[in-house]
Amino acid sequence: MSAPDSVTETPVFFLAGGTGISAETLGNLMLNQFPSVRFRRRKIPFITTPEIARQVVAEMDEAMTDAVTPLVFSTVADEEVRTELVKTKCAFIDLFGSHLDAIERVLHVNASHNRAGLHGLGDPRRYEQRMKAIEYAMEHDDGQSLRNLAQAELILVAPSRCGKTPTSMYLALQHGIRVANYPLVEEDLHSTHLPRPIRDYADRCFGLVSTPARLSQVRSERRPGSTYASLAQCSYELRRAEALYRAHRIPSINSASMSVEEMAAVIMQTRHMSNLA
Amino acid sequence: MSAPDSVTETPVFFLAGGTGISAETLGNLMLNQFPSVRFRRRKIPFITTPEIARQVVAEMDEAMTDAVTPLVFSTVADEEVRTELVKTKCAFIDLFGSHLDAIERVLHVNASHNRAGLHGLGDPRRYEQRMKAIEYAMEHDDGQSLRNLAQAELILVAPSRCGKTPTSMYLALQHGIRVANYPLVEEDLHSTHLPRPIRDYADRCFGLVSTPARLSQVRSERRPGSTYASLAQCSYELRRAEALYRAHRIPSINSASMSVEEMAAVIMQTRHMSNLA
Repeated sequence: MSAPDSVTETPVFFLAGGTGISAETLGNLMLNQFPSVRFRRRKIPFITTPEIARQVVAEMDEAMTDAVTPLVFSTVADEEVRTELVKTKCAFIDLFGSHLDAIERVLHVNASHNRAGLHGLGDPRRYEQRMKAIEYAMEHDDGQSLRNLAQAELILVAPSRCGKTPTSMYLALQHGIRVANYPLVEEDLHSTHLPRPIRDYADRCFGLVSTPARLSQVRSERRPGSTYASLAQCSYELRRAEALYRAHRIPSINSASMSVEEMAAVIMQTRHMSNLA
Repeated sequence: MSAPDSVTETPVFFLAGGTGISAETLGNLMLNQFPSVRFRRRKIPFITTPEIARQVVAEMDEAMTDAVTPLVFSTVADEEVRTELVKTKCAFIDLFGSHLDAIERVLHVNASHNRAGLHGLGDPRRYEQRMKAIEYAMEHDDGQSLRNLAQAELILVAPSRCGKTPTSMYLALQHGIRVANYPLVEEDLHSTHLPRPIRDYADRCFGLVSTPARLSQVRSERRPGSTYASLAQCSYELRRAEALYRAHRIPSINSASMSVEEMAAVIMQTRHMSNLA
């Protein structure tokens, strides 16, 4: 076998006039389709002038060799800046401009072709809502504050360490949803009644479960060797939680096999929530 | 003027085999280039079979009228599913497939053309890191816990209500960075020494400021009519905070005119941080 540093890596550049989040996300989705290829990734955000663009092209072209052609994913919208960028010798994948022409034809309207729409706070009302939702989610994490649950749009319910917190944060940050979360502790699981604080809100609850093995592993990182982390305890809590969800027709998902992004999408679809994007 | 409901809205569909986040983000970036057009948006995630695709096509085609052609943004990668989707009469903008062919030619490798790379946890190590980073950020929000600051990769420093919390959460959730944040209270601002808890970590600090008017507005929502929210107090704190950053060569940005996404990108670029995407 050859040493790791002798393996040829294909350089990949993500270019953007703004933060580069979309260029990176969509570019990586495409690169995931080539699991046998090794990539070396670099994001270059805020390319706002032709001068910067020329420097970027010089740098990218240096990465080009006889053996390897770098890939460039770009969401740059500014015409002047794009004119410079497309001069690169690398493979230039324009995630933006190539589609803009098609949209112009459909809408019979010319695109503004500047970065005005691409940065800043976007829709200020929606941005405010996201920021307020984060605050709400922080204040209502892990049953910390049970006041104002009436204002929650969604209450995530689960035994400890099933992923309530990251899922709540993601829903708040990306989708502006006011999420509270409520931890099912052992006392809650002895009965099939909903715990008092959430009793009136079953229609806003969404349950999370995990697999016993996964939950035991996650809990062991926090309290190794404890009853809390034991496989038997985890199995028991998950079984009881599922019974509770069933008894109250609370929809639920398993966090062991899904990312927070996927859980958020499923929860929103199930609860018919829309974001304001 | 015509009533709002008589204005023609162009229906927009975001289609995906996974969560639809990329389709939505990139689609919206493009739609922002047409500020004079009104859109009615709908996201349809998890289109995983030809059967679902046929239902989606039927629904989209119903939205088509003589006056308006709906726009469809798709990141669906599965060949069979795409074959069905492209039968729509709407304007189909394929954010994915159209570029995949170009990448295949550059890499001399065929794409796997399935959704394997498009869902699940992605790289498990990177996902773990993001989840742990959220936990760390929650525990170290607003100076709550000053233990383990040595483990922070980044410490956001600012007067109250300048945007530390959402920026920390975003950096943790999206980029897996262990972020702590430290609130500059009035006692901290009397001196130009760094507050004791962060004194040894100036090289990991990043400052946030705002404008006095914006800060006063945000604080007024929390404590209307208070000294804390007064323009004079906000001006004073911001001026002193900036002096502190300058004295210790702590880079800083103004959160009044930037989104959390932009702040995160600038901070990572300034501090030469990379995410593991």
